[in-house]
Amino acid sequence: MRNLKLTVQYEGTAYNGWQRQKNTHRTIQEIIEKILKEILQEDVVLIAAGRTDAGVHARQQIANFKTDSKSSVPKLQFALNSLLPEDIKVIHIQHVALDFHSRYGSKYKTYRYTILNRSYPDVFKRHFVYFYPFTLDLKIMQKASRVLLGRHDFSSFKKTQKDQKATLRNLKAIDIKKQGHFIYIDITAQGFLYHMVRNIVGTLIEVGRGKFPEDSLKKILVAKNRKSAGPTAPACGLCLMRVKY
Amino acid sequence: MRNLKLTVQYEGTAYNGWQRQKNTHRTIQEIIEKILKEILQEDVVLIAAGRTDAGVHARQQIANFKTDSKSSVPKLQFALNSLLPEDIKVIHIQHVALDFHSRYGSKYKTYRYTILNRSYPDVFKRHFVYFYPFTLDLKIMQKASRVLLGRHDFSSFKKTQKDQKATLRNLKAIDIKKQGHFIYIDITAQGFLYHMVRNIVGTLIEVGRGKFPEDSLKKILVAKNRKSAGPTAPACGLCLMRVKY
Repeated sequence: MRNLKLTVQYEGTAYNGWQRQKNTHRTIQEIIEKILKEILQEDVVLIAAGRTDAGVHARQQIANFKTDSKSSVPKLQFALNSLLPEDIKVIHIQHVALDFHSRYGSKYKTYRYTILNRSYPDVFKRHFVYFYPFTLDLKIMQKASRVLLGRHDFSSFKKTQKDQKATLRNLKAIDIKKQGHFIYIDITAQGFLYHMVRNIVGTLIEVGRGKFPEDSLKKILVAKNRKSAGPTAPACGLCLMRVKY
Repeated sequence: MRNLKLTVQYEGTAYNGWQRQKNTHRTIQEIIEKILKEILQEDVVLIAAGRTDAGVHARQQIANFKTDSKSSVPKLQFALNSLLPEDIKVIHIQHVALDFHSRYGSKYKTYRYTILNRSYPDVFKRHFVYFYPFTLDLKIMQKASRVLLGRHDFSSFKKTQKDQKATLRNLKAIDIKKQGHFIYIDITAQGFLYHMVRNIVGTLIEVGRGKFPEDSLKKILVAKNRKSAGPTAPACGLCLMRVKY
């Protein structure tokens, strides 16, 4: 028995997210599992570091699975990439210890949210950014974001329809920078609530635009109420960048 | 009467090239002209610097048109980008002298051809590169390319089916470099024959792979025969980068 760790890249635009679902076949997990089954001639269950939502991308999603197959790693990678659609590719495969678990073993994950902040959209990056043409005050956003650092109850930033009970999360880093017309919001934590990054970003945009006061994030955290925060920023701007073990 | 100069960006994947055609409506020229007509309520004829082929992209295509409209430039740009599809955008509009002509006035154009040279494709750049997994000797390609510089009869690199009579062209610069796994081939000239850049690239790839000898480009030029050169590199790797006036 071997445990193989895959590093997966995908453009999420065409998919209903990572996780296998009953009502759709267009999930990244199902597509990779199906092709692995075809190649290895055995059932495969992938465990992933993070379940990215519909439309969300990944530069480095980590997923592992156990197999009895003795297929060589380069051969398996080549076969996988030949059969995978062009918007999902496995960029690395590695043998890991049998007790390695992509999800439980992860120390932290970094997501990047990209905003295109100018008067017209970008043809080449259009699937990977949130086009937002209104002026944003970056300094105020940076300052406001700091209260989110550390351990908090993030109920105000959870997905409305989801009944997630354990809402304490520990935000390790939040970094907001601008390069050209692109604003990058990098958020690192061990784990996130559903929609948490997009709800934080949607709220920071309200602050940056002057719709919410600079000190509103503290109040929003304390409120523990999704309605107190800003809207959910669109999925297309979000990308899972790194998982640290 | 005013003369307006547009700087246009597009991803060419979904289009049959720039130039208006009788047998298709999916050309970039036709789509922009149609929307300009809708906005300005007058017929518009666009003159472009270069007629990019089907599937070829542009970072800076230049096109001008004359109009009686007094519509302000920012308003026109906003209206255009609101109505244009997401893979075509006008990134700049400028008033120019009435005798400015995008095509005849251009001093030179630079095209970039991008090769992804590693064992697996790139999910995010897949529409903008030619994925070529075999080893290429960059130094040999750079050396070999130099004989193309200057004024030559480029018949060997013209499009097979096209009966282009004037086949003399003056290659101002050819620059081949590697960044990470990407090989960029930048070619600058006042004008190009149909498929010329892609045929040069296809030939350089044969040289870089060792299928053609290093000194073969001189012989190919002299042969004045398309059959002596390498295959046409795919359109997706090609992009019109700059037009200089």
